[in-house]
Amino acid sequence: MSVVDFARFVDELATQSGQAILPFFRTAFATEDKAKGQAAFDPVTEADRAGEAVMRQLIKRTFPDHGILGEEFGAEDEDAEYVWVLDPIDGTRGFIAGLPLWGTLIGLTRQGVPCYGLMHQPFTGERFFGDGQAAHYRGPHATRRLRTRRKADLAEAIMATTDPRLFGEGSDREAYGRVERAARLARYGTDCYAYSMLAAGQIDLVVEAQLKPYDIVAMIPVIEGAGGIVTTWEGAPAAKGGRIVAAGDRRLHEAALALLNA
Amino acid sequence: MSVVDFARFVDELATQSGQAILPFFRTAFATEDKAKGQAAFDPVTEADRAGEAVMRQLIKRTFPDHGILGEEFGAEDEDAEYVWVLDPIDGTRGFIAGLPLWGTLIGLTRQGVPCYGLMHQPFTGERFFGDGQAAHYRGPHATRRLRTRRKADLAEAIMATTDPRLFGEGSDREAYGRVERAARLARYGTDCYAYSMLAAGQIDLVVEAQLKPYDIVAMIPVIEGAGGIVTTWEGAPAAKGGRIVAAGDRRLHEAALALLNA
Repeated sequence: MSVVDFARFVDELATQSGQAILPFFRTAFATEDKAKGQAAFDPVTEADRAGEAVMRQLIKRTFPDHGILGEEFGAEDEDAEYVWVLDPIDGTRGFIAGLPLWGTLIGLTRQGVPCYGLMHQPFTGERFFGDGQAAHYRGPHATRRLRTRRKADLAEAIMATTDPRLFGEGSDREAYGRVERAARLARYGTDCYAYSMLAAGQIDLVVEAQLKPYDIVAMIPVIEGAGGIVTTWEGAPAAKGGRIVAAGDRRLHEAALALLNA
Repeated sequence: MSVVDFARFVDELATQSGQAILPFFRTAFATEDKAKGQAAFDPVTEADRAGEAVMRQLIKRTFPDHGILGEEFGAEDEDAEYVWVLDPIDGTRGFIAGLPLWGTLIGLTRQGVPCYGLMHQPFTGERFFGDGQAAHYRGPHATRRLRTRRKADLAEAIMATTDPRLFGEGSDREAYGRVERAARLARYGTDCYAYSMLAAGQIDLVVEAQLKPYDIVAMIPVIEGAGGIVTTWEGAPAAKGGRIVAAGDRRLHEAALALLNA
């Protein structure tokens, strides 16, 4: 599995899953008579399944001894040395609303540790990918190295979270609120796009809860490859999901952890 | 001012403002050494000014007797029969965070009534435009007529608001909360992109507060041209901004007004 072939293979996974998913995006928009035939048809579920099915097929054919953990079709050979961790549509709520902040997440772990990840936004044509040592971007207007912003001060930080309601009404919500109040600006509704913008140096901090492994595994090698840090709120490895905090700057990560655990 | 020439002129405004604005989007991302020279440089302010300046120049040269109301440079000849209402970057917070949900809003009023509007998202290459009778979309993957979704039931509705914190902590927040709790799904962080997705039949309801005229004037002919309705929370014309509610379906609009004014 040479490095060049491997990156090409992941690109092919992204291309084929994108082709499977994109026709389901904005179907209300595309349908001339929207009153007909919508009741029995859930575009995001169809798109999720179609995207994951095409990736699973390609992986099994190319790497039959690899395991797969997918959002739609569950786990196969989870104890294999290499396991692919797939979320065909991370950000289904944005997808449903027609917003282009969802993405296809393709991650690979070796012995449980994320070693390669790619986020693909098929509508905008953007790809963010990394191996933990370096991260890159290819999009319609640019191709370049990804680097996080060195911003240590929470009062100057731009932060993001997918939905503040996901923290519930208890202590997690209070902990998140302490961070949000201390930050310069908070954006909502971001899903995997927030980690991508963190890797790009546009967002400084992402705080989430209730993540599944397939929501985060693919982003870890991108964030770390761009110079950022991502852990649980306890500072443990992020690959199992749960409550996650990612920062572009190690000092900012420490400041956020301190407030989350205050 | 023939119809064809006019639509071409607005397209040219969008093209030229987009060329002025886009280089400032994701500057952290574009700058190889991000530590240098950022302190004195505010990309979104620079982009706002550059985008509005180029539009004002083009309007004055082409329609010297028209008035202009712009977010950055204020009002000129506000009593003219035709007044252009410009917001070079609606959604500056999204812009700062690198998210592609901002847009350039170009509206035209005749005797105070919005008669043409265009929303341009230069990064994704999307244009949403309408004249109150019809509305259309041109984007990287499609060109088509815009039509709102006929969804009468709030319990099935996808809604959006830019930021629930903009409703404050008083009765407006409570009123908004009643609508959000009754809706199927609420998305945040959407700015003008929400009205565009409403026109496209992806989002059913948008509830906002604290809007300026230049935040909404350009979207009114798009929403109405797509079959939607947009008013203040009192049911009055929306062109002056303030507390705004837009819906794809007249029955849904009534249901939202009832809850907002309960």
